[in-house]
Amino acid sequence: MNTPLPYTFVLFGATGDLSLRKVLPSLYRAFHTGKLGDEGRILAVARSPLDAAGYHDWAEKHVRPHLDEGIWVAGTWERFLALIDYLPLDLSRKEDYGVLAERLEQYKGTRVFYLATGPSLFAPICEGLHHANLNEGARIVLEKPLGTDLKSSMAINDAVGAIFTEAQIYRIDHYLGKESVQNLLALRFGNALFEPLWRREWIESIQITIAEELGAEGRGDFYDQTGALRDMVQNHLLQLLSIVAMEPPFSMTSDAVRDEKLRVLRSLRKLDEDQVGRDVVRGQYAAGASKGVAVPGYLDEPGVHANSETETFVALKVEIDNWRWAGVPFFLRTGKRLAERVAEIVVNFRPVPYPLLGPQSARGGANRLVIRLQPNESIRLYCLAKQPGEGMHLQTVHLDLAFDQFFHADRMDAYERLLLDVIHGRLALFVRRDEQEQAWRWVEPIQKYWATSGKPPKRYAAGTWGPPAASALLAQHGTCWLEEEN
Amino acid sequence: MNTPLPYTFVLFGATGDLSLRKVLPSLYRAFHTGKLGDEGRILAVARSPLDAAGYHDWAEKHVRPHLDEGIWVAGTWERFLALIDYLPLDLSRKEDYGVLAERLEQYKGTRVFYLATGPSLFAPICEGLHHANLNEGARIVLEKPLGTDLKSSMAINDAVGAIFTEAQIYRIDHYLGKESVQNLLALRFGNALFEPLWRREWIESIQITIAEELGAEGRGDFYDQTGALRDMVQNHLLQLLSIVAMEPPFSMTSDAVRDEKLRVLRSLRKLDEDQVGRDVVRGQYAAGASKGVAVPGYLDEPGVHANSETETFVALKVEIDNWRWAGVPFFLRTGKRLAERVAEIVVNFRPVPYPLLGPQSARGGANRLVIRLQPNESIRLYCLAKQPGEGMHLQTVHLDLAFDQFFHADRMDAYERLLLDVIHGRLALFVRRDEQEQAWRWVEPIQKYWATSGKPPKRYAAGTWGPPAASALLAQHGTCWLEEEN
Repeated sequence: MNTPLPYTFVLFGATGDLSLRKVLPSLYRAFHTGKLGDEGRILAVARSPLDAAGYHDWAEKHVRPHLDEGIWVAGTWERFLALIDYLPLDLSRKEDYGVLAERLEQYKGTRVFYLATGPSLFAPICEGLHHANLNEGARIVLEKPLGTDLKSSMAINDAVGAIFTEAQIYRIDHYLGKESVQNLLALRFGNALFEPLWRREWIESIQITIAEELGAEGRGDFYDQTGALRDMVQNHLLQLLSIVAMEPPFSMTSDAVRDEKLRVLRSLRKLDEDQVGRDVVRGQYAAGASKGVAVPGYLDEPGVHANSETETFVALKVEIDNWRWAGVPFFLRTGKRLAERVAEIVVNFRPVPYPLLGPQSARGGANRLVIRLQPNESIRLYCLAKQPGEGMHLQTVHLDLAFDQFFHADRMDAYERLLLDVIHGRLALFVRRDEQEQAWRWVEPIQKYWATSGKPPKRYAAGTWGPPAASALLAQHGTCWLEEEN
Repeated sequence: MNTPLPYTFVLFGATGDLSLRKVLPSLYRAFHTGKLGDEGRILAVARSPLDAAGYHDWAEKHVRPHLDEGIWVAGTWERFLALIDYLPLDLSRKEDYGVLAERLEQYKGTRVFYLATGPSLFAPICEGLHHANLNEGARIVLEKPLGTDLKSSMAINDAVGAIFTEAQIYRIDHYLGKESVQNLLALRFGNALFEPLWRREWIESIQITIAEELGAEGRGDFYDQTGALRDMVQNHLLQLLSIVAMEPPFSMTSDAVRDEKLRVLRSLRKLDEDQVGRDVVRGQYAAGASKGVAVPGYLDEPGVHANSETETFVALKVEIDNWRWAGVPFFLRTGKRLAERVAEIVVNFRPVPYPLLGPQSARGGANRLVIRLQPNESIRLYCLAKQPGEGMHLQTVHLDLAFDQFFHADRMDAYERLLLDVIHGRLALFVRRDEQEQAWRWVEPIQKYWATSGKPPKRYAAGTWGPPAASALLAQHGTCWLEEEN
């Protein structure tokens, strides 16, 4: 653990959803465990005409309910609020940023500008900061959505990049802050055991799933303009894929790691129209049941256009054209209103070359490593063992890495970790411009095909695992999604 | 599970220690779980002038206390005793075997002759069986000690082999009947995951330990003429070694498996005098404490010669001269009055080639597979994982195969399994003559060196892990016995 540093954390959009649900609770959490010290300051900035006391009341009402259970402590919370100042500002008027500069003169330490606003404000905020000469030596944190396609993403990056160098820009993908994603790196590169197997010779296929139980409820407006491809595939799924598939970097410095991730993204086989039609499944949920309760279809959600063709589900096959992965299919999927909330990476090893102990060992899926990111982070290795008793009858068993057994230290959540990384200037877990744009470039043919093919998304009942076509996609390769076994 | 078969199980030495502690309890256990049916007969044979009822009383008194807890059931036990007949016989007089033949005419099914006697009776029993024409189509089960060196072992094998073909001879090494030894085969050959790593490229060293807490107490007479090399190394340790190191056989038939084990034994690097002096540690326990209770040294045990140089501890380094294992040291050890009762196989994988995540991953022992045979059978894979929180700090964790979680079926003990294998004619888990003699051939230089070097065994305090030289043996290779780690 690093010693707490002095810092000034400027939170733009301080009254918005992201601030109250994620940013401030995570900062409090870090403060509560001593990772953020009393020598920092948080300057909340938004349009509302409040003062510090007014903002504290607001935080009491809207932030405190989002704290993890058991971590609220009266005295600590008071000390935390005492770190928070408030400044009302019209973020779109660059002339007003002089007031911000004046206020910031009182504070010391690294300046972090956290843009918890819509992307339309990213460019005006950067211009304002430049106008007030606040960009130099500072760090800027950007949250998704970073554009809606390659072009708009480049426009945002150009606007921010005109004011900040790439080394100042922290693009958050909170999946990269998850402990089990970090642990995937630790397993692969901290052990001699997995890396020899981590290649086409021994791996048959890899699945990456981010499944949500929730629907678009309450966010229909936003979601209907976004869809699963932009919301999940282009960023989180491709980021996870790049971590799973990357070569060992020569060092763990930010750019060495991100260079390797970029190499994976550049190796993704480009999809042509035929391939999109065949290897990408686009779905939209219809009415169904979630945990035994009837729920409406996507088109009946408030804020959703009545004829919307926005996808709430995507499953796709990706191939990586390089020496290590040639011929190994990577299956990605994500969706809303699926049967379960789960995010996991499933590495399916090949069957034995010769079924010495019977046909069971020659089936796919007998050997499998499952890295679960949520809800409970865990690592599980499936293999075949002998059933006790006479003869040699095999049965699937699993070896479990029980995190809780080893790690009594309080776990950090992804946001907490990433915010501390920003304050400490550690870029490795943030997405570099070239990675982000390469990901957009790769999804572009899918966006184009959907926009022009005239084929609507496939419907699936809420509470299921998506359209049957998603299963068929794997069946062609003689495999199935993990939850479809037996 | 196989259907129970009709059988006639003739137990020679039916009033001896082996019969009451192992053979009859295991037969009862198999009967209790339905693996032996009511259509079998057990004919107990010994010198004592008893009848069936008298032997039942004896079994009630001497066998019942050795049954596993909870498996004694009045009705079942009565039915089991009803299967047991008794015949008094002077085993050394071949003329008397006609009576045995007469008695056996009443019973049907495969005949199994179990020789739970001293080895000096093996030849007379075989001759008697031959004399009465009982050898044809029968099976004969031999128990250790099968000789005291290559010559005496060959003499026994010649005598038995004159009457029985090799396919009729079942030489018991009860370690081969242990579930976790069987599971080692299942892991290696039922999964594609381990075999690619199971070789010199990825494995640094392998340890096999059979440690006892008990001393020679009560068996000093026998033990003083035997010693750890004959009692444990030549048979159990070399058998385990051959299972760990063998190539995948082309089938699981008895001879295919035993051919591969033999190939390992033939590949063991022959020890010359210098190597015995350097790579073999011979120990004898002195007074000390076992589980907090003072215990006498070996020389003060009843039945032990006052100047005995019999070893109660052996540790040695073995090299296997073949393509797969060249340069990988195998460390074997066994002893009495050690700190703990444990039998386990420890596979130490090599460290990472490049310590990307810090020096910890470059140390030996970070990756390790531990197969425990007793007291609790388990399989555990050690690796490094990330500690939660900031940065990338590694910590040793382990993935556990929790047998109990998967296998609710009642576990068989090693003897039970092996006895059923005999009844069903499955030879794979029994030691073939050529294996046994090859093992004796390999230990011969050690026996010779000890007999002639004039160097006494190294003393170690009872309740410790043996003489310090056993640690030094591994230290030369930059490694240590598993229990010596913090």
